[in-house]
Amino acid sequence: MDGMLVIISGPSGSGKGTVVKRLPSQNGYALSISVTTRKPREGELHGRDYFFTTEQDFITMRNENELLEHAVYVGNYYGTPRKYVEEQIAKGKIVVLEIEVYGALQVKEKFPSAVLIFLMPPTLPELANRLRTRGTEDAVTIDARLKKTLEEIPLINRYNYLVINDLVPSAVEKINAIVEAERMRPFRCMAEIEAFTESKTSQL
Amino acid sequence: MDGMLVIISGPSGSGKGTVVKRLPSQNGYALSISVTTRKPREGELHGRDYFFTTEQDFITMRNENELLEHAVYVGNYYGTPRKYVEEQIAKGKIVVLEIEVYGALQVKEKFPSAVLIFLMPPTLPELANRLRTRGTEDAVTIDARLKKTLEEIPLINRYNYLVINDLVPSAVEKINAIVEAERMRPFRCMAEIEAFTESKTSQL
Repeated sequence: MDGMLVIISGPSGSGKGTVVKRLPSQNGYALSISVTTRKPREGELHGRDYFFTTEQDFITMRNENELLEHAVYVGNYYGTPRKYVEEQIAKGKIVVLEIEVYGALQVKEKFPSAVLIFLMPPTLPELANRLRTRGTEDAVTIDARLKKTLEEIPLINRYNYLVINDLVPSAVEKINAIVEAERMRPFRCMAEIEAFTESKTSQL
Repeated sequence: MDGMLVIISGPSGSGKGTVVKRLPSQNGYALSISVTTRKPREGELHGRDYFFTTEQDFITMRNENELLEHAVYVGNYYGTPRKYVEEQIAKGKIVVLEIEVYGALQVKEKFPSAVLIFLMPPTLPELANRLRTRGTEDAVTIDARLKKTLEEIPLINRYNYLVINDLVPSAVEKINAIVEAERMRPFRCMAEIEAFTESKTSQL
């Protein structure tokens, strides 16, 4: 059975990172690996943590449409390599990509069979609460994030699914149900359909 | 949360009837009720087993696009009333309609938000076996049914999901996963999205 690309997206503070970490590795999930021009840090492995590359090679990849999305962060390029995603899908893996809203929509455009999941906190006050508890941002930044979240809400209708992240285990269970259902999409079951048609030779 | 119309369809012998009977009633499932011009049999209740109607009224319903599909069987008309389906969905129910392949496609056209599930036996020999075990059809009829099944296979790509009915409990579990996932479609969560946006008034 074919695998698929699952994009877990949503506003800052929606809990993307926590949910993605909990997706059970035994279920055929595989995290997407980014390509980056950043230098490897101690302990980081090429092909496990990142694909490390030069700026020149990164630009070539981008120009040849080998990246599903890309962005600059603190002077370094980061991108999602199409080839790695496709190889994992061919092996039946559920490739998980955690990414913010606009990057997610960029990927969906380049990779239409991707399953696009919007993770939403239960309420705005709860989101504000989570951002405050995190303690990494000041009040002005938190206010800006909440306003940005409200701007992102109308984009939900370009997503395939909306998962309300009230409790992490429940959100993980919902994502598992989505993956189970998406495995039954006819276009992901071409091998099974062919096997059924082939089964006639022994019978008819 | 909105309900939905779930159409369980597939070839004769795919096990539609058995699977539909096992869908747990406690989970918000409700069987679709047909309108018919057939006379009620003893013990049959209007509004529970069927909506009984006159031929004249049936034809009016059909002409006014109040039927999602209709067919003639042994001289009587049968149809699926749109109004009943819509009322149940508004109550949050999962309305289940069990129907053959061409009828299912007819419903999907008139009711695009319906979730169309193709139930497929694991192999053709297994299907032949089930039809023989049933004992209601002779060899020539069974042969015709197998050929018809092969003709229906290419129509799977017009379906939303393919469920291989190897074991009934497993097929039921797969349908439950599909329903759980479909509940998270953004267009079925308009109330939740609105509630999230509204939640700002108390916060920002």
